[in-house]
Amino acid sequence: MAGVNGAVQYAQAQQAESLGQLEDLLRIPSVSTLPENQPDIARAAEWVADCLKRLDFERVEILPTARHPMVCGEWLGAGPDKPTVLVYGHYDVQPSDPDDLWNSPAFEPTIRGDNLFARGASDMKGQLVAFLRATEALKANEGLPVNLRFLIEGEEEVGSPNMLPFVQQERNRLQADICLNLDAGILAPDVPAITYTLRGLAYFEIRLEAAKGDQHSGTFGGAIDNPAQVLAHLIAGMKDRDGKILLPSFYDKVRPLTPEDRADLAQLPQNEAWWKEQAGVAHLFGEPEYTPTERATARPTLEVNGLLSGFTGEGSKTVLPARAMAKISCRLVPDQDPAEITESMRQYLIDNAPNTVTWELLTHANAPPGIVERESPAISAAQAAFEAVWGRSAVFSRQGGTVPVVGYVKQELGMDSLLLGFGLPDDNLHAPNEKLHLPSFYRGIQVYIHFLDEYGRAGAG
Amino acid sequence: MAGVNGAVQYAQAQQAESLGQLEDLLRIPSVSTLPENQPDIARAAEWVADCLKRLDFERVEILPTARHPMVCGEWLGAGPDKPTVLVYGHYDVQPSDPDDLWNSPAFEPTIRGDNLFARGASDMKGQLVAFLRATEALKANEGLPVNLRFLIEGEEEVGSPNMLPFVQQERNRLQADICLNLDAGILAPDVPAITYTLRGLAYFEIRLEAAKGDQHSGTFGGAIDNPAQVLAHLIAGMKDRDGKILLPSFYDKVRPLTPEDRADLAQLPQNEAWWKEQAGVAHLFGEPEYTPTERATARPTLEVNGLLSGFTGEGSKTVLPARAMAKISCRLVPDQDPAEITESMRQYLIDNAPNTVTWELLTHANAPPGIVERESPAISAAQAAFEAVWGRSAVFSRQGGTVPVVGYVKQELGMDSLLLGFGLPDDNLHAPNEKLHLPSFYRGIQVYIHFLDEYGRAGAG
Repeated sequence: MAGVNGAVQYAQAQQAESLGQLEDLLRIPSVSTLPENQPDIARAAEWVADCLKRLDFERVEILPTARHPMVCGEWLGAGPDKPTVLVYGHYDVQPSDPDDLWNSPAFEPTIRGDNLFARGASDMKGQLVAFLRATEALKANEGLPVNLRFLIEGEEEVGSPNMLPFVQQERNRLQADICLNLDAGILAPDVPAITYTLRGLAYFEIRLEAAKGDQHSGTFGGAIDNPAQVLAHLIAGMKDRDGKILLPSFYDKVRPLTPEDRADLAQLPQNEAWWKEQAGVAHLFGEPEYTPTERATARPTLEVNGLLSGFTGEGSKTVLPARAMAKISCRLVPDQDPAEITESMRQYLIDNAPNTVTWELLTHANAPPGIVERESPAISAAQAAFEAVWGRSAVFSRQGGTVPVVGYVKQELGMDSLLLGFGLPDDNLHAPNEKLHLPSFYRGIQVYIHFLDEYGRAGAG
Repeated sequence: MAGVNGAVQYAQAQQAESLGQLEDLLRIPSVSTLPENQPDIARAAEWVADCLKRLDFERVEILPTARHPMVCGEWLGAGPDKPTVLVYGHYDVQPSDPDDLWNSPAFEPTIRGDNLFARGASDMKGQLVAFLRATEALKANEGLPVNLRFLIEGEEEVGSPNMLPFVQQERNRLQADICLNLDAGILAPDVPAITYTLRGLAYFEIRLEAAKGDQHSGTFGGAIDNPAQVLAHLIAGMKDRDGKILLPSFYDKVRPLTPEDRADLAQLPQNEAWWKEQAGVAHLFGEPEYTPTERATARPTLEVNGLLSGFTGEGSKTVLPARAMAKISCRLVPDQDPAEITESMRQYLIDNAPNTVTWELLTHANAPPGIVERESPAISAAQAAFEAVWGRSAVFSRQGGTVPVVGYVKQELGMDSLLLGFGLPDDNLHAPNEKLHLPSFYRGIQVYIHFLDEYGRAGAG
């Protein structure tokens, strides 16, 4: 660890400057979904690009997309013998409304106790500034021990619609040994965590059609089939009431959880009571042989996201619907392949849809699961960094959600992603009174310093 | 039949007057659903009341409801030894749009060939005028052989929302031995028919709620239940893929079809090809031991009329819905009771809904099935009337739909309804180019004359 003492001391001495820089960025209301914030999006992109320029990065550019630009830049001064890290983050934020539920204005950063309140403080301007500060501390002292490339987008909060074509077009600008994704969190201020898997996603829309148009249920009821009921039978057959998914070959590629995986997940503070409290339910549901945390993060799912058929207004209409639609998505775990799961769904429909309906299967999303092997240089470096800063090792955490960019860099660039960030579960992401826990922010800067140092020595060159 | 020769000859001699009177009424665009037609609704009600006054009816009144008025009137001159017939009809019509699909303006009655084209010609100003003409013919010749009461509403095309309270409040004005419902049809110009059963209706809305709000399918998928999937399982369990309904005790009160019933239904021209053509389907569906006509008219049903849950817009949203809703209705046959079917549905939900959801069961409609016993004075009178006019007996037909007023007069006044009208299946009801087959209209006048004569001699006094 001696190698980065200078950088660590620099970061500790400059906490006020780090906070000030974060507050500057938080004052820009870079809400990506609202057209009126277009100028703020542009200002935030310039703010990030200016930072990179001040750090002597090269090829710093604000690259347009169909909507909001990407900010890229690179520093390859560590040389070809050192590994290269692609740093992913986003400068856009969620809208602040309902504003009247904020205790201080969303875009006027305000400190109360240990927390800094502002929209984007935790998701994820805090992580972005922390990493920039770690970079600055290293450059001002021991020097950067790895090559760095930045990919900072402005559309994460609207679903990253332009990320895939961008990654496809800008392969040269993005090549690296690992993607360090800053959009992540820990489990509690005293429970550092490394997210080493993400679930993938296969998102379908099933459309059934029976009669040539909506019919009268008095005239035709009993003589013809009802696509809403066919849909109910099909959905009921996709997953049983023990939570087991019944699509053909669905579990074939699921990598079994090792005893070590399960022991790690069992250590997490998310017990049954926690899950009930978080979801606001009296009873949990799912595969009885797995814990709720395993089911929500390490097991694949099949969930209906939407249902629509016939008359759905107030009161009654005696229609026998001609059509029925379901949106259904599967969260996938290593080593499931979304294309194979799509084929599994198609085969299920071929095998089970009756001849009274015609059906169509649309695919809305197709993201592979993400995993960093636990025996890998990036994981070892992250673990060493946490031990150096927190004085304890991080728990291994799995994230149940899907981060599209993780799938895209894996699919297009063959690159694993390590998710390393310092948000907390109670940071009110996407909600009023979003906050950042400042002690975790300052420790985060140091973790990034140590991570780059460790990875520079252990990572592939 | 000798008793009504005068009336029949009078009606035949006055076909031009009958047609002219019908055209007068058809020129009034009495569309009940559109506020701008409010004055036309008032004119049509006055037109009917004026007709009754000209026929020397008593207590002729336009009685207001919460929306459109009822027209009532009575003639009790046949005396207490003669039966009393309550004549039901409606003076309102469906909207005419899309007007550009009409070959002649919807409210300018136009004759082409044997047909008179106009909105409301078949549904049901044609039947209403036919009955008024039959009444006039009898009054001008042999005299009315029965006591008559009229109940002509202006809200049938908007679901008769004020009929039940009206029937409850005006019992004295409506008492009779039988309700003659003119809103009916025959199967083809050469196939006269008597509709002797209608199906009833129990219409439900099931609302399920799981989590405290919509959740993220990545965060919670696998750990908690999904109300859309619970709903699919519940719906799938309500009816099997052979069309058998699985609610407890559902079939207990179903009166079995007699060999005579089945033989009559087998004579109807509605074969499998006809049902496929009408519904626009390649394959029919339902209980294999019954014909499509039996299933659509003489067997009870359970149909999903609407489904709604989660995200139903374009594209994808990874929501794990908190709520799911289904609208479900059962068509009921003699002697099922809608209140008992509601309890059956409630018991099914008690037995089958898992503890991961809370549920609510709403009732939107509750109409008993209607039947006139085939061995009854009204049926015998109708059959004799058809034989006199068509030279052949009518087939016995069952209607799969529900006419709310039939349920109300049964429930509130204990009165059966005989459906006797002359609409044809291809009359384009509720569609552009609605038409009335004029030869059937003129024969209809004669059938009503003969029916009243026969019923006056056979009916209970």
